[in-house]
Amino acid sequence: MTYDCFLFRRLFALFYRRRVPLPPPAGLILRLQLRLTDYNPKQMAIREKVFNIIISCFKRHGAETIDSPVFELKETLTGKYGEDSKLIYDLKDQGGELLSLRYDLTVPFARYLAMNKITNIKRYHIAKVYRRDNPAMTRGRYREFYQCDFDIAGQYDAMIPDAECLKIVYEILNELDLGDFRIKVNDRRILDGMFAVCGVPDEKFRTICSTVDKLDKMAWEDVKKEMVNEKGLSEDVADRIGEYVSMQGGQDLAERLLQDPKLSQNKQACAGLTDMKLLFSYLELFQVTDKVVFDLSLARGLDYYTGVIYEAILSQTIPALVSTPAEQNGADEAGVSVGSVAGGGRYDGLVGMFDPKGRKVPCVGVSIGIERIFSIMEQKASSEKVRTTETQVLVASAQKNLLEERLKLTNALWNEGIKAEVLYKKNPKLLSQLQHCEETGIPLVAILGEQELKDGVVKLRNVVSREEVDVPRADLVDEIKKRTL
Amino acid sequence: MTYDCFLFRRLFALFYRRRVPLPPPAGLILRLQLRLTDYNPKQMAIREKVFNIIISCFKRHGAETIDSPVFELKETLTGKYGEDSKLIYDLKDQGGELLSLRYDLTVPFARYLAMNKITNIKRYHIAKVYRRDNPAMTRGRYREFYQCDFDIAGQYDAMIPDAECLKIVYEILNELDLGDFRIKVNDRRILDGMFAVCGVPDEKFRTICSTVDKLDKMAWEDVKKEMVNEKGLSEDVADRIGEYVSMQGGQDLAERLLQDPKLSQNKQACAGLTDMKLLFSYLELFQVTDKVVFDLSLARGLDYYTGVIYEAILSQTIPALVSTPAEQNGADEAGVSVGSVAGGGRYDGLVGMFDPKGRKVPCVGVSIGIERIFSIMEQKASSEKVRTTETQVLVASAQKNLLEERLKLTNALWNEGIKAEVLYKKNPKLLSQLQHCEETGIPLVAILGEQELKDGVVKLRNVVSREEVDVPRADLVDEIKKRTL
Repeated sequence: MTYDCFLFRRLFALFYRRRVPLPPPAGLILRLQLRLTDYNPKQMAIREKVFNIIISCFKRHGAETIDSPVFELKETLTGKYGEDSKLIYDLKDQGGELLSLRYDLTVPFARYLAMNKITNIKRYHIAKVYRRDNPAMTRGRYREFYQCDFDIAGQYDAMIPDAECLKIVYEILNELDLGDFRIKVNDRRILDGMFAVCGVPDEKFRTICSTVDKLDKMAWEDVKKEMVNEKGLSEDVADRIGEYVSMQGGQDLAERLLQDPKLSQNKQACAGLTDMKLLFSYLELFQVTDKVVFDLSLARGLDYYTGVIYEAILSQTIPALVSTPAEQNGADEAGVSVGSVAGGGRYDGLVGMFDPKGRKVPCVGVSIGIERIFSIMEQKASSEKVRTTETQVLVASAQKNLLEERLKLTNALWNEGIKAEVLYKKNPKLLSQLQHCEETGIPLVAILGEQELKDGVVKLRNVVSREEVDVPRADLVDEIKKRTL
Repeated sequence: MTYDCFLFRRLFALFYRRRVPLPPPAGLILRLQLRLTDYNPKQMAIREKVFNIIISCFKRHGAETIDSPVFELKETLTGKYGEDSKLIYDLKDQGGELLSLRYDLTVPFARYLAMNKITNIKRYHIAKVYRRDNPAMTRGRYREFYQCDFDIAGQYDAMIPDAECLKIVYEILNELDLGDFRIKVNDRRILDGMFAVCGVPDEKFRTICSTVDKLDKMAWEDVKKEMVNEKGLSEDVADRIGEYVSMQGGQDLAERLLQDPKLSQNKQACAGLTDMKLLFSYLELFQVTDKVVFDLSLARGLDYYTGVIYEAILSQTIPALVSTPAEQNGADEAGVSVGSVAGGGRYDGLVGMFDPKGRKVPCVGVSIGIERIFSIMEQKASSEKVRTTETQVLVASAQKNLLEERLKLTNALWNEGIKAEVLYKKNPKLLSQLQHCEETGIPLVAILGEQELKDGVVKLRNVVSREEVDVPRADLVDEIKKRTL
């Protein structure tokens, strides 16, 4: 390999995820450096399948869809993501407005509602978002990835749209067949009330909330240490929090906590607990309570949540996935811990930040951690053959000089709506035509020969069984449709 | 309106296309300044319909799909677009590689093939591309828009994949039902041969090609003036070009030109004309020659074409569209003149530019000018009501205190795969429930009342005819499916 050629390959390798297998140690290091990726046809076929399941679910629930530019005015994104703002991609100032690439789909949605004075909508939005590598981060992650959001905006009676969001997560995870899962639910008002009655000073609510959020990755002892040593809580206060955040349950737990001598004195907590009870009664009607847990340790990272929050976690971990960039990205994507595949909550204040008069539009939504789901599906399909086309039939011939007849028949099939291919060779060998079918999973071959042309028939061959039958030309389309339902 | 509020609205108005109607003169000026746009649910529904037609066609022809990041290494794009390179969006150097936003889908495709050593593939790619405003341009255009590309890469027998690309354009424009159209075809080798025999110096081929490309917008007299006055051709040479570029025909014209005393002496021209004859013989088999014209004035802008080129033009102009930014963008998008809705050609050299050893992969492809098609479809639908959801039934009640029953029934319908909605109110009025159906086009209402619950039935109402019938609960799903096929 010449030096130039080596440099060229390094450049590509650094920039794009390599598709060729690499020996483990070098490969791992390389993969961790790679933060952008093309998707090949097999990956796209898997993605299409996942998208279809998710979009069908959103449509079953009556959602419309919108799209927004990948650019947002830099100001639109400023002050919405806390310290993650450093991950925002800015465009070069080439004369014109200062633009950034969207960081998520929630802020553009809130901006869209305010700008168009929309006060109620149920919409989904599936699109790519962009995050710069944090140079301090040791683990790699993609800088471009899909988000897949469903949100309900509008002033409605309490907990009905919130319950529907949870029903949607349940339906999607069931249909994707990713194994057992749980959906943790909590409420920011319950957390705040809990902090208040434990004796956390008001100004420390958010930072203690972030520490609680680490409970899914850290033991209580370590979380407590952080509260005491880094965040300056007294041991007493931390222990009181510790008691609450170990609690898990359902409607019963909400009822019990409403009787809790301390929490019941806190207005915020009571409002949250009353809504939690109501939420569970709706979840009961939606038949999803077998997977939903009221978990006081769930905090979630983002500042903008104002009420119910939730997060779905797969029970089964897939070992082969651990420590691949995609997996970490998947986790990052929904802003939640490894293992989490969906998350969301109620954010009643965000739209008001974009309205000149501060008019609020209550919103609740969920983001499906689709990149992590793709990784899992790819992993599951890694040994399988996945079809990347939908071709029903290849028009072939065993003899020479039949290109025109092949093209004519292919054209007739296209005109009838049949998905058909023909090799772009004048005189391809029958073997290479059959091989093409086997490689790409085309189930049928329509074979033309002098005899078939004379008889007005086509020899229809089943690629797998190798069984052949003469089909009259007039019946061919129906026969192909029947066999490839 | 306060000044702050005014500033705020100006800012938004400048950046995003406004959805609110504006009085004509102010509105027009404003629209011309706006170069980014959200898509509302109605627009998205139209887009989805267009995408479905196009993707179905691509799949019918056996194409797979790939995706690439919106970022490309700045170097990848450098030197591919000639003077249009100034329209490339660069990302801010925030530490790391220098990145740009993709300018089209063809260069990333070529880069992908070279990087993955793929020598044959039939793929489509539908994605957004980015172009900076040219500050010198007086007419606005969107800075983000979809491209919709279909390409066949591989070493095949001449003109077979090229003919399929034209068949695809024909099928798509037919199905989209945009009125009559023509597909102009030419070949770069014929153009070059023609320039040579007319006496154009070699080094002026490309610049004269650009001038010829203007023939669809300018009269021959003006094109000739540019050739003579700006490009320095003699009148004689220009007149000889003028004779050729006025020629239009089909296979017969290719045959006639093969007998042309001058052109027949040029190797390039002969190769192009022989292929043109062959192409038309395949187009005959594909039954598309009624719309295809061999037109010697077709030149197309991009440098990388090496063989057949083509462009589809709608016959019917839609007056209301003229001079909207979207329309100009649509035209720009395929890099062709106003009226053009698809274009493409053969580019056998591009992949080799990305391969370390310069290995070539012959490619031919077509780009559907989808933004222009969206504009036309939106225009056609502007007075129509377009459904933005697919909801089949709204679960409603006429009486109070039936929320639980409504949720239960809605849940049962979701579980059976029925697209169902329910208003998020405890006690909505029947009128507002019916209004919701009328506004959003939901065809059926499933009405629950005390009596219906007692009888084990649901009152199924047809929203349009207002006809109501009691359906036993057990038959409801089948009845809804039957009525909303």
